[in-house]
Amino acid sequence: MDSLDLIKSLSVANNTKMVLLVLDGLGGLSLEAGGKTELETANTPNLDLLAESAALGMTDPIMSGITAGSGPAHLALFGYDPIKYAIGRGALGAAGIGFDMQEDDLAARINFATADNNGLITDRRAGRITTDESSKLCELLDKTEISGIKIFVKPVKEHRAVVIFRGSGLSDKLSDSDPQKIGVKSKEVVALNECAKDTAVLMNKFIHKAQNILADKHPANTILLRGFAKKPGLPQMKDVYKLNSAAIAAYPMYKGLARFVGMEILQTGPTIREEFETLKTSFNKYDFFFVHVKATDSSGEDGDFNRKVKVIEEVDKNLALITGLKPDVLVVAGDHSTPASLKSHSWHPVPFLLHSKYCRFDNAKHFGERYCSKGTLGRFPALDIMPLMLANSLRLTKYGA
Amino acid sequence: MDSLDLIKSLSVANNTKMVLLVLDGLGGLSLEAGGKTELETANTPNLDLLAESAALGMTDPIMSGITAGSGPAHLALFGYDPIKYAIGRGALGAAGIGFDMQEDDLAARINFATADNNGLITDRRAGRITTDESSKLCELLDKTEISGIKIFVKPVKEHRAVVIFRGSGLSDKLSDSDPQKIGVKSKEVVALNECAKDTAVLMNKFIHKAQNILADKHPANTILLRGFAKKPGLPQMKDVYKLNSAAIAAYPMYKGLARFVGMEILQTGPTIREEFETLKTSFNKYDFFFVHVKATDSSGEDGDFNRKVKVIEEVDKNLALITGLKPDVLVVAGDHSTPASLKSHSWHPVPFLLHSKYCRFDNAKHFGERYCSKGTLGRFPALDIMPLMLANSLRLTKYGA
Repeated sequence: MDSLDLIKSLSVANNTKMVLLVLDGLGGLSLEAGGKTELETANTPNLDLLAESAALGMTDPIMSGITAGSGPAHLALFGYDPIKYAIGRGALGAAGIGFDMQEDDLAARINFATADNNGLITDRRAGRITTDESSKLCELLDKTEISGIKIFVKPVKEHRAVVIFRGSGLSDKLSDSDPQKIGVKSKEVVALNECAKDTAVLMNKFIHKAQNILADKHPANTILLRGFAKKPGLPQMKDVYKLNSAAIAAYPMYKGLARFVGMEILQTGPTIREEFETLKTSFNKYDFFFVHVKATDSSGEDGDFNRKVKVIEEVDKNLALITGLKPDVLVVAGDHSTPASLKSHSWHPVPFLLHSKYCRFDNAKHFGERYCSKGTLGRFPALDIMPLMLANSLRLTKYGA
Repeated sequence: MDSLDLIKSLSVANNTKMVLLVLDGLGGLSLEAGGKTELETANTPNLDLLAESAALGMTDPIMSGITAGSGPAHLALFGYDPIKYAIGRGALGAAGIGFDMQEDDLAARINFATADNNGLITDRRAGRITTDESSKLCELLDKTEISGIKIFVKPVKEHRAVVIFRGSGLSDKLSDSDPQKIGVKSKEVVALNECAKDTAVLMNKFIHKAQNILADKHPANTILLRGFAKKPGLPQMKDVYKLNSAAIAAYPMYKGLARFVGMEILQTGPTIREEFETLKTSFNKYDFFFVHVKATDSSGEDGDFNRKVKVIEEVDKNLALITGLKPDVLVVAGDHSTPASLKSHSWHPVPFLLHSKYCRFDNAKHFGERYCSKGTLGRFPALDIMPLMLANSLRLTKYGA
């Protein structure tokens, strides 16, 4: 029995409202020894006021020392063990562009690449062609059909694209065609079990067809496929938690991840204010809201400490839109850290705040890494956030007599 | 290998003495935001003095967000994974009334219930008859025999009772007769595997016999059975920890739980002072003492903040009876939180204190939730308490060379 089974056996429905506000890449680092992180630097009177009557802690997205990608990090936030419930890269890629995968769809990642006259790969990224160029190439391959299988090819960024095959009986037990090095030919896709043989034949047909279509499109004259994956069969939040849940996210990837666990995806504008307004207008219709703010992460990835500070301050300025709704449980969390000084995701534990009338109070003066590290919730796995939110909304019955 | 196997492979006997003082439902909540919990409110000069030279922390009984019942919570305190070693409800019920189950006994919970002339259940609790009334009904059913199987029927509280079947070859792989709703007949008990078939026949015979005996006892004219369970085959503390262990508890449930893991049950009076006196008089005879104080929990369940405070103060006043014995390891812990404001068990982590000459010192000013949250032991699973106690009594050898 994993923790999700346990939660499922204990969860009950009621009329409470919960908001999980995720500031992507929230955790940070100071620029110099002993200095302040992005969150500590930000002027956040509203978050600070909330922290005063909240329980604080630090979460580990996966485990100590592990830097989480967006997929596993969000699975953990939603209460799904990110080691057990891995989402295949193809399916994550499809989610990332907002493609709504069907039950039988098979997805894979595409790299546009360069091959020489002998078919040897000379550049696995086709000179990093622009997204515009790759979009045009995708159109050439999109909406074709092979042996009754419909094929969708959609651009991601630069040389990267996604392909989705729609038909019945497709298997994802397939090896990659991407050789992961240059100076060799792309590999044949090989079936990893008996049932996948037909699909492998089909994949190789598609690759050869694509090579013909792209023959004169040097440097993008071939494609490499990897990460074949079907839609992950994740337990649904409605069944496990007995929750009507909704996602408010501007970026396709996060909508896709939320869709995988059965959340309703709400239409929203791209700004923080618009996202929070969407929460307000739909607050009566759902029990649980996942609200996703992307710019904390993207500014961190860009190495822009000051911009990350400003994004956090913008969240703070608009916070009353959420607190004014008086949700029974409000959590402010991050999926992982993205310190501007590292220009990337990192392994550092992430500041966490939970406000409910049943939490213990930290009387903290400020919402930031230092206060959260000394918080009453201690340091705990992000996987525990959902059980904690459910407990604080009195949605979990007692385990054992 | 689970943690118990590891501990078993490392544990050795020596002459140290350990006391695990469990204040049931110890953890609490403040009545208003930022206020003090029951434990923080209590005037506890002796516990505070102990805290000054002890290591503090916060324990999770089961896992984050999960509210523990007494059974699983105590298994965790005794070092047994409460998810792996579930005690069947029937067996827990028998433990709860202090019934000493034998190896082959089969136990189940009984609800006295009301059926109409067509045998349809109209009230699953027989109008919540008094414990006195149900005691008389139990006597009618007690000490009967069917096909050579001895039957014990004992009252619990109001409409609830326990039945224990004594004979050989009884199986607990049985479905409940309790339909869990009204307007339907009670269910036949069904064997869940081949070996349980004879037992199922026997159970249905017992139910029909009981219905005949109770026919004119409206509203308690039938019984519903659930939670069939044999005595849990738990590893014994003597084998796993090499400990001569004893339990000092006034309430039957906790004696029963201690008996399941092989503790000796010591005779004691019901007051805190009498329990602590019992420890004193038997201190030379055992290595490990589980001392259980119930009133912290019952006052919390009653929603009586002030009484819970007073119970804690009474423990404090009598603490010298324990500390005067100078046990090598003294732990003050709770099995779960029972905040008066919630009038029930809750999921909140529980204050923890360990005193030994080998612990790190927190120099805390007070034993309470805030100090424990910032303690040197951090927040950790209650399952780790026994290994920690054994380590501090130098009873665990090194793992690996």
